[in-house]
Amino acid sequence: MVAEIMSVGTELLLGQITDTNATYISQRLAAHGVDVYYRTTFGDNLERVTEGLRLALSRADAVIITGGLGPTTDDVTREAIAAAFGRELVMDESARAHIERFFAARGYAMTSSNLKQALVPQGGELIANPKGTAPGVLVEADGKLVFAVPGVPREMQAMVDEAVIPRLVAALPKSLVIRSRVIRLAGIGESAMAKKVEDILVGQANPTVAPLVGRGDVILRITAKGESEHEVERSITDVESRIRERLGEYIYAVGEEPLEYWLVQALTERKETLSIAESCTGGLVSDRITNVSGSSACYLGSVVSYDNEVKATVLGVSRDLLAARGAVSAEVAEAMATGVRRLCGSTYGLAATGIAGPAGGSPEKPVGLVYTAVAWPDGVESAEHRFHMDRLDNKQRASQAVLLMLHHRLRRTA
Amino acid sequence: MVAEIMSVGTELLLGQITDTNATYISQRLAAHGVDVYYRTTFGDNLERVTEGLRLALSRADAVIITGGLGPTTDDVTREAIAAAFGRELVMDESARAHIERFFAARGYAMTSSNLKQALVPQGGELIANPKGTAPGVLVEADGKLVFAVPGVPREMQAMVDEAVIPRLVAALPKSLVIRSRVIRLAGIGESAMAKKVEDILVGQANPTVAPLVGRGDVILRITAKGESEHEVERSITDVESRIRERLGEYIYAVGEEPLEYWLVQALTERKETLSIAESCTGGLVSDRITNVSGSSACYLGSVVSYDNEVKATVLGVSRDLLAARGAVSAEVAEAMATGVRRLCGSTYGLAATGIAGPAGGSPEKPVGLVYTAVAWPDGVESAEHRFHMDRLDNKQRASQAVLLMLHHRLRRTA
Repeated sequence: MVAEIMSVGTELLLGQITDTNATYISQRLAAHGVDVYYRTTFGDNLERVTEGLRLALSRADAVIITGGLGPTTDDVTREAIAAAFGRELVMDESARAHIERFFAARGYAMTSSNLKQALVPQGGELIANPKGTAPGVLVEADGKLVFAVPGVPREMQAMVDEAVIPRLVAALPKSLVIRSRVIRLAGIGESAMAKKVEDILVGQANPTVAPLVGRGDVILRITAKGESEHEVERSITDVESRIRERLGEYIYAVGEEPLEYWLVQALTERKETLSIAESCTGGLVSDRITNVSGSSACYLGSVVSYDNEVKATVLGVSRDLLAARGAVSAEVAEAMATGVRRLCGSTYGLAATGIAGPAGGSPEKPVGLVYTAVAWPDGVESAEHRFHMDRLDNKQRASQAVLLMLHHRLRRTA
Repeated sequence: MVAEIMSVGTELLLGQITDTNATYISQRLAAHGVDVYYRTTFGDNLERVTEGLRLALSRADAVIITGGLGPTTDDVTREAIAAAFGRELVMDESARAHIERFFAARGYAMTSSNLKQALVPQGGELIANPKGTAPGVLVEADGKLVFAVPGVPREMQAMVDEAVIPRLVAALPKSLVIRSRVIRLAGIGESAMAKKVEDILVGQANPTVAPLVGRGDVILRITAKGESEHEVERSITDVESRIRERLGEYIYAVGEEPLEYWLVQALTERKETLSIAESCTGGLVSDRITNVSGSSACYLGSVVSYDNEVKATVLGVSRDLLAARGAVSAEVAEAMATGVRRLCGSTYGLAATGIAGPAGGSPEKPVGLVYTAVAWPDGVESAEHRFHMDRLDNKQRASQAVLLMLHHRLRRTA
């Protein structure tokens, strides 16, 4: 099966946002063995989207469109699908009732333009949107499938996972089993990692091994196709074993979830608790931990001590130490970690202090210099880092570094 | 002038990397008044890239291709350009010498495939690559321009800035000025906003007005083209005035930067300071404030009081109040705001407490219920909100709500 991806939105063509939706859909299709030969991007222009859809239908079995489903007159995707198939748009009464209920339940004022979202090309069906008001559209005709989902990433992702992929998988010619497994690494760079497994990465066909680099995360995704679950899992496990021989010491988890998820799991299992003192990361470490559902089982709280007075009065960092070593120092990082641990009464205390930039650097303490620390019931340790990114990425790297310190501490006492 | 962007690389279609190159080139073209109606993405397939280039040439004045210029047999962009114009590939002797010198100087072994990078379609020219070995390609024929640049972002960016954009600007019919202005709104939904300015959004040509919706932010971008800075700015200001007549009460800023930037600006100008107490937002509000460079001038610190003991011992929220009203209540939000303000000695204290979900809700206090509060030197007030998103979006909406409370407070005492 061959699918094509169309992204609709003038903001894409103006470069105001990056098309991460196309990446996401590409990944999901690849993971299920659906080939993609073309992706195309259009502005909010009915004629061009209609023509583009006709071209896509001439060369693919399925077309997935993101964007252009909103309530404004800019949004042309519904109209383009109807035009490409030569059909009328009709009101879906159950969708209309759903939208009316949605607004009534929330006490929002509904406008007539909201009802546009209940329109569907004749003979098509609506795809439920579990995360928003705009339903998607599915039209099956002439042996082709056309899906339209909203451009809002969270809504698009849920609808692709829950509706588009299952429908495409059901339409695949035979029961092909495709599985993938994500190996998460830390403490090694992308190039060094790639060099160690070069022979595994090159010339692979099934399973494939693809490196993916996030902000501070190095990831290998193993994907295999086959006729049975057993066969596929075995071939993935074989490749994972070969990777572990070379990179075992750097692997911190196997799975889709990010580092903070694994830390919350580990702490909760151990019935241990965490508190965090943040300076340069400014709340980001706490934000990441609290993004994990269930984090309240192990996470007690944080102090963001941006100002030195807050470091002294709330965390109890000695004013003499702040004056002697400066706020950006290993000693202050350790004092922050022990201070927040004591304040919150947690098993572990984490801390990060540094210079995120772009201002605030000096020859002795340049932008990107960060100290992280972890305190536990009978000890504390710190580490020095140098990051070379912009402010937001330096914050991200520092948050990853301090979370990895906790990971290593937990591993040493597992 | 109309340009089209083609991205070449199988890794894009597999979703292994996100196409930030297309975003970059789109931004650069938009900034210089070059229209883009289509972007297309291809795998490393000679036939499909050649066909795609022919189609692009049929509908655009210029085509910019990224990727497929490397030394491996996978790389087909040179061959596709030659094929689309029906020309031979010939060796560029000065490029050949340059590549030989590059390898000799570094003591690297050169393979014959490296010399492939010195090939150019007959009559075309090579574009120097200041950051790598692969030169770009420029072919001008039949009144059309085709540029090919590598897919490595920093090489691509340098070559677009130094070669592609200057050549396109020189080819523009006259010196066109293009400017845009971003109007930021809060307290109104996308549909309601669109309805109020429907006649301005519809049938616009120059200036154009495009709505953009972020997480909790509603944005209108006005873009105008013209022959002079003066003319363009005046036509943008005219449209802004029309928008202000309808939506003035919802406009909180004009500019590219997000809400937190404007708050940091305002507090710094007023020489006032801020501290934050976070429960359900888990550090996100602080993270947003500290994403603003220079926020240390007004932002002192935060307490993330996830655990009720931290609310009581660090922020001084009364245990009786916590027991009587529950942590998710207007009274506790106000006590958190006044508590963090007193603890940090700031002019303003902000607080958010609620249930982010998916767990933790009850019939009386459902998921998405959030109380926000702002405390100032002689008062405190709170507000109740109901969000209907998932955990991360509820956190985002709550962070926007509490920052907007501060905005309204500052405006009332401006």
